[in-house]
Amino acid sequence: MPITRHEPSAILSDVVEANGFVFTAGVVADDATLDAKGQTEQILKEVDRLLGLCGTDKSRIVSATIWVTDIRNREKLNEAWSAWTGGKNLPARACVEAKLADPRLLVEIAVIAAKG
Amino acid sequence: MPITRHEPSAILSDVVEANGFVFTAGVVADDATLDAKGQTEQILKEVDRLLGLCGTDKSRIVSATIWVTDIRNREKLNEAWSAWTGGKNLPARACVEAKLADPRLLVEIAVIAAKG
Amino acid sequence: MPITRHEPSAILSDVVEANGFVFTAGVVADDATLDAKGQTEQILKEVDRLLGLCGTDKSRIVSATIWVTDIRNREKLNEAWSAWTGGKNLPARACVEAKLADPRLLVEIAVIAAKG
Repeated sequence: MPITRHEPSAILSDVVEANGFVFTAGVVADDATLDAKGQTEQILKEVDRLLGLCGTDKSRIVSATIWVTDIRNREKLNEAWSAWTGGKNLPARACVEAKLADPRLLVEIAVIAAKG
Repeated sequence: MPITRHEPSAILSDVVEANGFVFTAGVVADDATLDAKGQTEQILKEVDRLLGLCGTDKSRIVSATIWVTDIRNREKLNEAWSAWTGGKNLPARACVEAKLADPRLLVEIAVIAAKG
Repeated sequence: MPITRHEPSAILSDVVEANGFVFTAGVVADDATLDAKGQTEQILKEVDRLLGLCGTDKSRIVSATIWVTDIRNREKLNEAWSAWTGGKNLPARACVEAKLADPRLLVEIAVIAAKG
């Protein structure tokens, strides 16, 4: 069973395919000056792109893990999240608080999707 | 390959089936006034219910991620956990500290199970 | 579809196989007096061993979740990580800050791999 790794950097691949599943890395915003909603919008756009590299899309996400640096940002996160999901094909999700690699980053999201 | 999503709320599905696996959301206690042991008991009862919706059960859990708001509650968590597992069919598990959505919540658990 | 559980302790199995995937527990260092680099080296050696029990190896890891107790230790972690991966077959990865079961533990790593 082959494994396909997309966009390897020095330490990780952005997204990996194996056995009918797709695993993204923890995605953070490019622009760390945005607020939690803006960062989430950037992240979800990048998740779309990564899933597209694997021939799947957000309608096939099965599980999402979300880290926020301040749990009070959950509401802003959810605004961007709900606009993105449109309330359809909702994955299982866990959202907890954690500090991230850069103190300006407010949100990080990793997803597991089924292949298309 | 179909994906089955159970009990979608506004932002997530409680449990999702795909490709022979079942993914639960991060489950928290209904009654946030309970102590860590009581909350864990409620969570594990809910995990049983969610797995049942997918035709599988706790004997087929492969991986569990547990967040506790105070790592010192790990012992109380483990009391409820061990009573529930009965020491059988134990999944891989990671347990770390994280703040959760409501400050009264002490424990959150997400599991991945194989279908029955 | 059978599930194979290796090295069950009182509360968890060190590594579990199901449906073509392998799930490790959150692995921590045996020697909690080591620095973050030393602890990571021990962890990754143990990950090698656990994957070996399942007939797979680090070249087939699809996803890694890493918790560090101080995100500033990310650099030391990455030194050990990069020496271990050799920059090849890189998994998707998320690395966030979290307190762990013992205050002297600095790093915990859980991985999902495809079977060999």
